Amino acid sequence: MARKKAVVLLSGGLDSATCLAIAKDAGFELYAISFRYGQRHAIELDCAKSIAIASGVSKHVIVNLDLGGFGGSALTDTALQVPKHDSVSEIGGEIPLTYVPARNTVFLSYALAWAEVLGALDIYVGVNALDYSGYPDCRPEYIRAFEEMANLATKSAVEGNRLVLHAPLILWTKGQIIRRGLELGVDYSKTLSCYDPGPLGEPCRHCDSCLLRAKGFEENGLLDPTWVD
Amino acid sequence: MARKKAVVLLSGGLDSATCLAIAKDAGFELYAISFRYGQRHAIELDCAKSIAIASGVSKHVIVNLDLGGFGGSALTDTALQVPKHDSVSEIGGEIPLTYVPARNTVFLSYALAWAEVLGALDIYVGVNALDYSGYPDCRPEYIRAFEEMANLATKSAVEGNRLVLHAPLILWTKGQIIRRGLELGVDYSKTLSCYDPGPLGEPCRHCDSCLLRAKGFEENGLLDPTWVD
Repeated sequence: MARKKAVVLLSGGLDSATCLAIAKDAGFELYAISFRYGQRHAIELDCAKSIAIASGVSKHVIVNLDLGGFGGSALTDTALQVPKHDSVSEIGGEIPLTYVPARNTVFLSYALAWAEVLGALDIYVGVNALDYSGYPDCRPEYIRAFEEMANLATKSAVEGNRLVLHAPLILWTKGQIIRRGLELGVDYSKTLSCYDPGPLGEPCRHCDSCLLRAKGFEENGLLDPTWVD
Repeated sequence: MARKKAVVLLSGGLDSATCLAIAKDAGFELYAISFRYGQRHAIELDCAKSIAIASGVSKHVIVNLDLGGFGGSALTDTALQVPKHDSVSEIGGEIPLTYVPARNTVFLSYALAWAEVLGALDIYVGVNALDYSGYPDCRPEYIRAFEEMANLATKSAVEGNRLVLHAPLILWTKGQIIRRGLELGVDYSKTLSCYDPGPLGEPCRHCDSCLLRAKGFEENGLLDPTWVD
């Protein structure tokens, strides 16, 4: 019997690499999808490619998005500066400038389109509501609402097939995510989470993403393998 | 006081042209969004441009989508043939090949992203559940589910602003849509609805879309202005 297919959102970061490993461990045939959306740095897409190859995905597509043209985010708008801190305790409760408008909705919509073409009924996304930066589209209630909408949106759903949107990391700490990834053999040296890396992909060690990730490795008694000098 | 902004999905067809006129009549400042998604014919985008200009929109963006790369639709895949009929009664109950996977979900996601950047809380979409071709993402329950999801997705929603997804045509017949559009002064000779137009944008007069549209004009005692020889 052919294995069931799953579409997995793959950014090249730590969370999505772990999510891909979880989908693989669940026995799915893997279809990875990444996005080129006017990121300041394209190095994370190189990371996504290495991770996809190392995970033995059946196909990896990189979709070109026009999202940057709308403006409004430090991740795509070079006129805005990525917020920097010296420790994780300085990360504020406000939604930061690095928020990209409706990003996960756009990404998941593409995943849904591809899933329908592939005949896949499972989509995996590595969003996390706990050790995150306050993005609304990383919360459990958002994920459930997208799944509900998706099950009314497609020909496949109308024909009686139930689509499942898996967000296995959603309530885990960064430490728990890394622990599970290490159990599944994820090579985190291949991942990049930094919002503002150097020219060779070196993490800045001061953005929200770098600090949360370092804390997660620390909780496992480890150093972030990408922080090796 | 500044007028409230609305993002309006504009395909260049009859329904979205009418929808734009309805949003204008409601007093909104108009932001029109169209998509280049590997359509076989790009003439509908020229129609969208003319309609946007004639309606005095503040801005019209055409977003480039990569959707065609997924395959699976006669509208984007030249290996599949657009279904043709001699009369509207021949249009079957099945979802036709012209269905594009998750298309409205992808389109609305972009509209949501732009709305957030603009600070707009209103999105208009000209979907229609009655005289349509059986697309699941044209039904009222789908529209409500997308609105629900959108109100959990964005920074703006988290800050307490309620986004409204307007689908004013959703339960109208094609005849009713045209009647309202004529009252509002829509110039239907500028619109193109055909799935398979000739090289100069002439409607084929046999696809589902041409036949449904002709019936709508007939109900108003008129000939489709684009059918003039």
